[in-house]
Amino acid sequence: MALSTSNSVSIAQNFHHDLPSRASFIRTTTLSILKTRRRRRRRRDRSGTQAHHLLVLVNPLYDSSPLTCRLPRSSFSPMQDTSSSSTYSPRATVRSSLIEPDGGALVELVVPEAERAARRAEASRLPAVRIGPVDLEWVHVVADGWASPLRGFMREAEYLQSLHFRSLRLADGSVVNMSLPIVLAIGDEEKEAIGKAPDVALTSPGGDFVAILRRIEIYKHNKEERIARTWGTIAPGLPYVEEVITRAGNWLIGGDLEVLEPIKYNDGLDQYRLSPRELRKEFDKREADAVFAFQLRNPVHNGHALLMNDTRRRLLDLGYKNPLLLLHPLGGFTKADDVPLSVRMEQHSKVLEDGVLDPKTTIVAIFPSPMHYAGPTEVQWHAKARINAGANFYIVGRDPAGISHPTEKRDLYDPDHGKKVLGMAPGLEKLNILPFKVAAYDTVGKKMSFFDPSRAQDFLFISGTKMRTYARNGENPPDGFMCPGGWNVLVNYYQSLQKEETGKESAVVSLKS
Amino acid sequence: MALSTSNSVSIAQNFHHDLPSRASFIRTTTLSILKTRRRRRRRRDRSGTQAHHLLVLVNPLYDSSPLTCRLPRSSFSPMQDTSSSSTYSPRATVRSSLIEPDGGALVELVVPEAERAARRAEASRLPAVRIGPVDLEWVHVVADGWASPLRGFMREAEYLQSLHFRSLRLADGSVVNMSLPIVLAIGDEEKEAIGKAPDVALTSPGGDFVAILRRIEIYKHNKEERIARTWGTIAPGLPYVEEVITRAGNWLIGGDLEVLEPIKYNDGLDQYRLSPRELRKEFDKREADAVFAFQLRNPVHNGHALLMNDTRRRLLDLGYKNPLLLLHPLGGFTKADDVPLSVRMEQHSKVLEDGVLDPKTTIVAIFPSPMHYAGPTEVQWHAKARINAGANFYIVGRDPAGISHPTEKRDLYDPDHGKKVLGMAPGLEKLNILPFKVAAYDTVGKKMSFFDPSRAQDFLFISGTKMRTYARNGENPPDGFMCPGGWNVLVNYYQSLQKEETGKESAVVSLKS
Repeated sequence: MALSTSNSVSIAQNFHHDLPSRASFIRTTTLSILKTRRRRRRRRDRSGTQAHHLLVLVNPLYDSSPLTCRLPRSSFSPMQDTSSSSTYSPRATVRSSLIEPDGGALVELVVPEAERAARRAEASRLPAVRIGPVDLEWVHVVADGWASPLRGFMREAEYLQSLHFRSLRLADGSVVNMSLPIVLAIGDEEKEAIGKAPDVALTSPGGDFVAILRRIEIYKHNKEERIARTWGTIAPGLPYVEEVITRAGNWLIGGDLEVLEPIKYNDGLDQYRLSPRELRKEFDKREADAVFAFQLRNPVHNGHALLMNDTRRRLLDLGYKNPLLLLHPLGGFTKADDVPLSVRMEQHSKVLEDGVLDPKTTIVAIFPSPMHYAGPTEVQWHAKARINAGANFYIVGRDPAGISHPTEKRDLYDPDHGKKVLGMAPGLEKLNILPFKVAAYDTVGKKMSFFDPSRAQDFLFISGTKMRTYARNGENPPDGFMCPGGWNVLVNYYQSLQKEETGKESAVVSLKS
Repeated sequence: MALSTSNSVSIAQNFHHDLPSRASFIRTTTLSILKTRRRRRRRRDRSGTQAHHLLVLVNPLYDSSPLTCRLPRSSFSPMQDTSSSSTYSPRATVRSSLIEPDGGALVELVVPEAERAARRAEASRLPAVRIGPVDLEWVHVVADGWASPLRGFMREAEYLQSLHFRSLRLADGSVVNMSLPIVLAIGDEEKEAIGKAPDVALTSPGGDFVAILRRIEIYKHNKEERIARTWGTIAPGLPYVEEVITRAGNWLIGGDLEVLEPIKYNDGLDQYRLSPRELRKEFDKREADAVFAFQLRNPVHNGHALLMNDTRRRLLDLGYKNPLLLLHPLGGFTKADDVPLSVRMEQHSKVLEDGVLDPKTTIVAIFPSPMHYAGPTEVQWHAKARINAGANFYIVGRDPAGISHPTEKRDLYDPDHGKKVLGMAPGLEKLNILPFKVAAYDTVGKKMSFFDPSRAQDFLFISGTKMRTYARNGENPPDGFMCPGGWNVLVNYYQSLQKEETGKESAVVSLKS
């Protein structure tokens, strides 16, 4: 068929069956850059419009899908100001040296300090909606601009576009990705209490005023349809569904957010919760000419590190002078058996201390979003949000945001669909997607290596469950699986869990006796 | 929020709260046409690119959503050849006077007569896949070009785009709508029998060779995910799911179709099964300057007729000289309690005979697609296919392609979502969507009228179920609900059904006794 999954995949396929040697790979790509620059200039001269630029990187080390990169604008756009802009003004257009935020402007919704008292007074006179902890995480996410250009909880027109098309069309006709519905549910009683009020106040689970939601719209919350279209199943047991949606009300309330003060968690980790604007500043300060984001919700093992270090090396080979790694653990809701954020952050810091990742070229920050475990649908959100933070390269692996099927003995998603769908997703064309081959423990080399199917028997796959079993039993994983400092953090965590459980059991026993 | 469901809706909203009188409505729209023309010309002069043109029609008679029309290209594009092109060559670019087929060229996949013997001989040497009656309908649909630019059953890259984004991105970066996965399922044994063969033959339910499927790709058929993402539920009892998907194999086979001869049904209705190319020829022959399509799978009552006639009148008011109605009943799979195609066709012909619709400005043809009953997802397919046939206006009503929830006492879809989602759908921007207000029986006027909420008590809603009950009991519906000739067709059909059922019961009784 004459159809392609995307421009990039289409071009990539031409290279697919003819993997070049490493030398020719570099030669080819360098040539492509130069040709692309010239073509781009010609095209702009002719029409004044900008077309996407594709650069195909084929690397036999990586996945069978070759790397497909769109050149960062800064590298060939003499018309753009690539100097660091240290004087962002809120809600003004932020032009990054690397990649523009979706919609052109970074959304920031925290009320300026001078106006907070007046807004708080106003909030106290409005009908109030008490939101849950996950809702509060979404307020944080939207307020910081991760979902730019979204300015609040979705009204029905945004909700339907997100649900059906995973994207939003803007007033200028352009399309941004928006794969997860970012919505706030309320119950019948709350709806009645709101009546015809145009604005409502949102209060935190603790009862504090958090935000004003302006020009609200209330519409039906068809949970079944939302779940089916987002997860591709309605089987019971999906973590986010059980925790957030099932117990939520039958109405959704959309509107524009005005957040009364920056969201803080006071858990000792707030300094890692950098907003997209703060990250962009940091990238500019460090004079990054490429930023590659790595989304994770698990401890970093040496397979991850291999991949991140290899990506940096390859970006250097491509001519980038200072590619930075954004190591970006997800900080919002996760399922009960995931390793908690505080433990992960400690583990990540050991990985940098132990020199597995280079602190000089790595920025560790927390991505405050809750986790849906919605596979190919959610990985788009993970990538889109990083565009807003200024990352122009996004690493995607096997089965991103995937989980086991809640009621059947299989993965919920085809492990390859995540990266495939990401490469097709509307609104992500400007992001360079870096798919990677899975890494596993090489029992011959005694280290984590990219899996080589020609000697499959040499490789050991250490799943999350397996890793947790090792740590829980105080056993060591094979040498070279994870740096010792990082591993100790996990062992200590699981041992404390066991103590806690034993403690609980003793308590139960003593109550009984 | 600064987001809009589409350009058109965004502009439409400006008019929303200020419904003008009929006179000012015409004045406004005429002015808009002129302004748009001027703006368009300026824009083209500047950049050489074409932007969409929006014309907003606000009519208080219609739905609360104002009509949003994009001007047909022919009316302001002096660069396009608007003469009728009577010498289409297969697979060449077809430029319609009204609207271009998706992807620019109408796909036609029937092998030229001279080559059929050779292809048939080749088919007999290939691994064969026997397809079901609904699969055969899809072969017909694709072969005729309704799904242009799709050239066969979807490979995985098309399937994933359709499932996740309801659209396909073409090699040139443009996007076409493709809301239903058009796929062919096979079982484990068939997959094994095919082995590594690059091409397979498709045989009909009767065992005849139908087509060759070239450059095949076999991939997993995750039925649960397909159903959930297409219907927004996996509740048991969805007609297409029960009839087609549940019993289908666990693999999908994609590839390019070469159809060995035109698909015929030999049911006396083949002459109504005009292909998109034949319809375009007919529109050109009749010198239509606008074609408005009406998709239906039910008998035409006077409410439908009111709407179609009103649409024509309004297109005339807008300055079109010869708008034609494409009355386009769906001819493929429908659920068991729908009125069968042959009866509907007879009913439609009576509606034209009785003068309820004007034969001079109406074309009746059969749309060969099977019905999914997938509401907002399916209505996009219904609209997209009509673009390929040359229709530049598409009428959409309440709950298009909707059904009752199979296990709950409610509509499966919000009745307003169909038209809303249609207005947002990627790839349908060039089609003028005409949403309409529901018509009901006006007990005061004793005729079908557009529902007027200010005198709701005067209106009687006659559902399909109610209509069937009338016909089954030989009762007449209220005067003016349907023309007598059309009504008699239905009464006769239901009476014959009852006789058949009584016959079956007698047969059972006589077997028992």
